[in-house]
Amino acid sequence: MSIYIDPAVASSLRGFEMPEKLGFGKVMAPVMFRAVCQDGCWSRGELLPYAPLALDPAAKVLHYAQSCFEGMKAYRVQGGGVGLFRPERNAARMVHSAERLCMPPVPESLFMDGVRTVSAYCANLVPANSGESLYLRPFLMGTQPDLSVSTSSTCEFYVIASPSEAYHPGNMRLWVERENARAALGGTGDSKVGGNYAASLLSVARLKERGYDQSLWLNPGNRRTVDELSGMNFFAVLDGELHTPALNGSILEGVTRDSLIELARDLGYRVREREIDIDELLGQVESGRCEEAFACGTAAIISPISVFGDGEREYRPAKAPGPVAERLRAALLDIQEGRAEDRFGWMQAVEAVGE
Amino acid sequence: MSIYIDPAVASSLRGFEMPEKLGFGKVMAPVMFRAVCQDGCWSRGELLPYAPLALDPAAKVLHYAQSCFEGMKAYRVQGGGVGLFRPERNAARMVHSAERLCMPPVPESLFMDGVRTVSAYCANLVPANSGESLYLRPFLMGTQPDLSVSTSSTCEFYVIASPSEAYHPGNMRLWVERENARAALGGTGDSKVGGNYAASLLSVARLKERGYDQSLWLNPGNRRTVDELSGMNFFAVLDGELHTPALNGSILEGVTRDSLIELARDLGYRVREREIDIDELLGQVESGRCEEAFACGTAAIISPISVFGDGEREYRPAKAPGPVAERLRAALLDIQEGRAEDRFGWMQAVEAVGE
Ligand SMILES: Cc1ncc(COP(=O)(O)O)c(C=O)c1O
Ligand SMILES: Cc1ncc(COP(=O)(O)O)c(C=O)c1O
Repeated sequence: MSIYIDPAVASSLRGFEMPEKLGFGKVMAPVMFRAVCQDGCWSRGELLPYAPLALDPAAKVLHYAQSCFEGMKAYRVQGGGVGLFRPERNAARMVHSAERLCMPPVPESLFMDGVRTVSAYCANLVPANSGESLYLRPFLMGTQPDLSVSTSSTCEFYVIASPSEAYHPGNMRLWVERENARAALGGTGDSKVGGNYAASLLSVARLKERGYDQSLWLNPGNRRTVDELSGMNFFAVLDGELHTPALNGSILEGVTRDSLIELARDLGYRVREREIDIDELLGQVESGRCEEAFACGTAAIISPISVFGDGEREYRPAKAPGPVAERLRAALLDIQEGRAEDRFGWMQAVEAVGE
Repeated sequence: MSIYIDPAVASSLRGFEMPEKLGFGKVMAPVMFRAVCQDGCWSRGELLPYAPLALDPAAKVLHYAQSCFEGMKAYRVQGGGVGLFRPERNAARMVHSAERLCMPPVPESLFMDGVRTVSAYCANLVPANSGESLYLRPFLMGTQPDLSVSTSSTCEFYVIASPSEAYHPGNMRLWVERENARAALGGTGDSKVGGNYAASLLSVARLKERGYDQSLWLNPGNRRTVDELSGMNFFAVLDGELHTPALNGSILEGVTRDSLIELARDLGYRVREREIDIDELLGQVESGRCEEAFACGTAAIISPISVFGDGEREYRPAKAPGPVAERLRAALLDIQEGRAEDRFGWMQAVEAVGE
C-alpha cells in the first residue's frame, strides 16, 4: 500500500529550526507517521505534520496503559547518508510487546514504512556529531473509548522522532534495588510496555536523592540475580570474559545487547549468558576479579558503571570506563556511523527525500 | 478556589440523550471536570463539555504509562436524590497511587470538587434501577512531552462519568492463574495504576478461550496464596466465617472490601484477614468446608463465584450465590441506595444542579 504524504509536511519541515542544545528526546521533529487498526484491519500509513493527538478521555491507553513502544536511531553515516541499525529487530520486538498486551501486531512492512519514511523526510535533521542521532520512537496504543478493562478494538500506531544527543554521556552510579520491582515474574518484563517504566520511576526518584543515577533491577522471582537497568542491559567483565544475564522472561532482549555479544565474539572475547548472582558479583568487584561493568542500550550506547551502591556500602570496579567497554563502544559506533565495514549486514541505508 | 463552569456545559447536558441499553462504562456523560498541575501548582478546576483531549504525541502517559485512576459511583437514593459512597477513601487511594508513580497527589478538596461537580450536573443521568449508577472515573496522567524516562512536570486530572448497569450480573467462573502475574512484589499491585490492568489482559484473553470469566491472581512473591481478581477483591466463607486475603502490598485495598468487613462484623459474622493458601482453599471447596466464595468491588458490587478452574480440574462451591453473599450484597446496596439507615456515616448527598 502506498503511503499518504500530507501536503503540509513540506512546509512543516521547511519551518523547523534546529535548536542549539538538543538534549535527549526533548526536541521533536515536525512530522509523524500514523496508521490505525480497526478490528484487525490496518489503514494506509500517513506522514503528517507533528500535531497534538485527539484522544477520547475514555481511551483505553489513558486508563489501562495499553501501550507499547520501540526506541531506535537513524544515524548520520560517513559520507553523509542516513542509516538504520537492525530495524527488523525492533519491528519483531514490537510484535512481541503488542501480543503481550493483546494488541494487533504492527506488520513488519508497516513498521518499516514508518521508520523509513520519517527518517527519509527528516534526513536533514539527523545530527552529525558522533554519538548523536535522530532518535525514532514507534509506539502503539489502544484508543477505544470504553471504561471496561478489556482489549481495545481500535489501536493507533505512530512513529515520531527527536534529533538527540547521546543519552548518558558519563559514568553511572548504580543502586542495587532490593525492594522495588519494575515487572513481575510472569509479568511484562520482556516486553517494551509503558507499565514497566511507570513502575520504575519511584525507585529512580529515591536513588537520585542518595546520589545515584540508575537502579540495577534484580530478578523478581529470586530477588538475587541481576536482570537489567530501567532502559539498558547489563554486562560485567570477569577475568577478561564478558558476562551478561541470560534472557529469562523478565529481561528486555536489547538489540544492543545482542549486537555486542556478536561483536565481542567476533573480536575474540568469550561471552557468557548466565544467571549473575548480585552478591557474588559485588564480591568480585571488591576482589578485583570484576574489573569493569557497563550498561548498554540504543539510547545510551555503552555507559560504564563506576559504582554499585548497596545499602550502606559501595563497590567500585577498578576501571570505568574499562578497556573492553571502550573497545566495544568504538567498534559498534564505527559500524553504526559507517566508519567500519558493515560485516554483519546490520545497516540499512535510507534515501533522503526532498533535499 | 471556585470552579469554572464552561457556559457550553448547559447545552451539552440538554443535548444528551440517554440510550436504551447502557452496558458498563460505554455511554459517556456529556461533561468532564479538569484541572492541571504544572510544576506542583494546581490550576482551578473546570467543568467542560466532554470532548477529545489534545495530547502531544510525546506525552509521558502514552509511552511510560504514568497514569492512575479511581472507580466510584453516584447512586440514585431512595426519595430521588443522589449520593456518593465513601468518596474520601477514593481520594486517599488516588493520593497513594499518584505517589507510587511520582505524580503530584490530587488534593482531597480538588478530588471532591471533581466528583461532586460532575455528579451534581449529571444528577439527571443517574439511572434509577437498583444496581445501576453513574460510574465516576477520576484519573490523573503525566502529559509533559519528553521522551526521557522521568517524571512528568505537567499532570492533568479529569473526572468523567458513565451511566451504567451493574458490571458482572451473573456468577463467575474463575481461573486460578499460576503463570502470569499482574504486578510484582515491590511493584504497583497496591496502587490503581494503568500498568496493572494492561498486564492482566493476556491472562483474561486466554481464560476466556477456555470458558472462564476472570483470573484469580496469586501473590507474586510466593505464588501460592490468593491475592485478588483484576478488578475485585476476594472473599471465601469457611465454616460460616468470612475470610479475605490480608493486605500485603500487592493487593488493592478495595473500598467495597473494607466496607464489607465492617458491615459483616456488624451483622455478627466473624471476619478474618489472613493469607489464604490456594491449594488449601481448593481442598476446602471440594470437601464442602468452603460453601461459598465471592468477589467484590465498586463496579461488580458482589459477584458469586461458581467455579474455580485449576489446570485440568474444576472446584465448585456448594452455593453460588450463597446466603452470606446475598445478605451482604443486599445490606450494602440498601445503604448505598438509601433504603437502609446510613449507620456508618458512609453516604454523602449531592445537591443536583440545574434541574
Ligand atoms: C528495559 C530495557 N532494557 C534494555 C534496553 C536496551 O534495549 P536496546 O538495546 O534494544 O535499546 C531498553 C531500551 O530499549 C530497555 O528499555
Ligand atoms: C485490582 C482491583 N482490586 C480490587 C478492586 C475493588 O476496589 P473497590 O472496592 O474500591 O472498587 C478494584 C476495583 O476498583 C481493582 O481494580
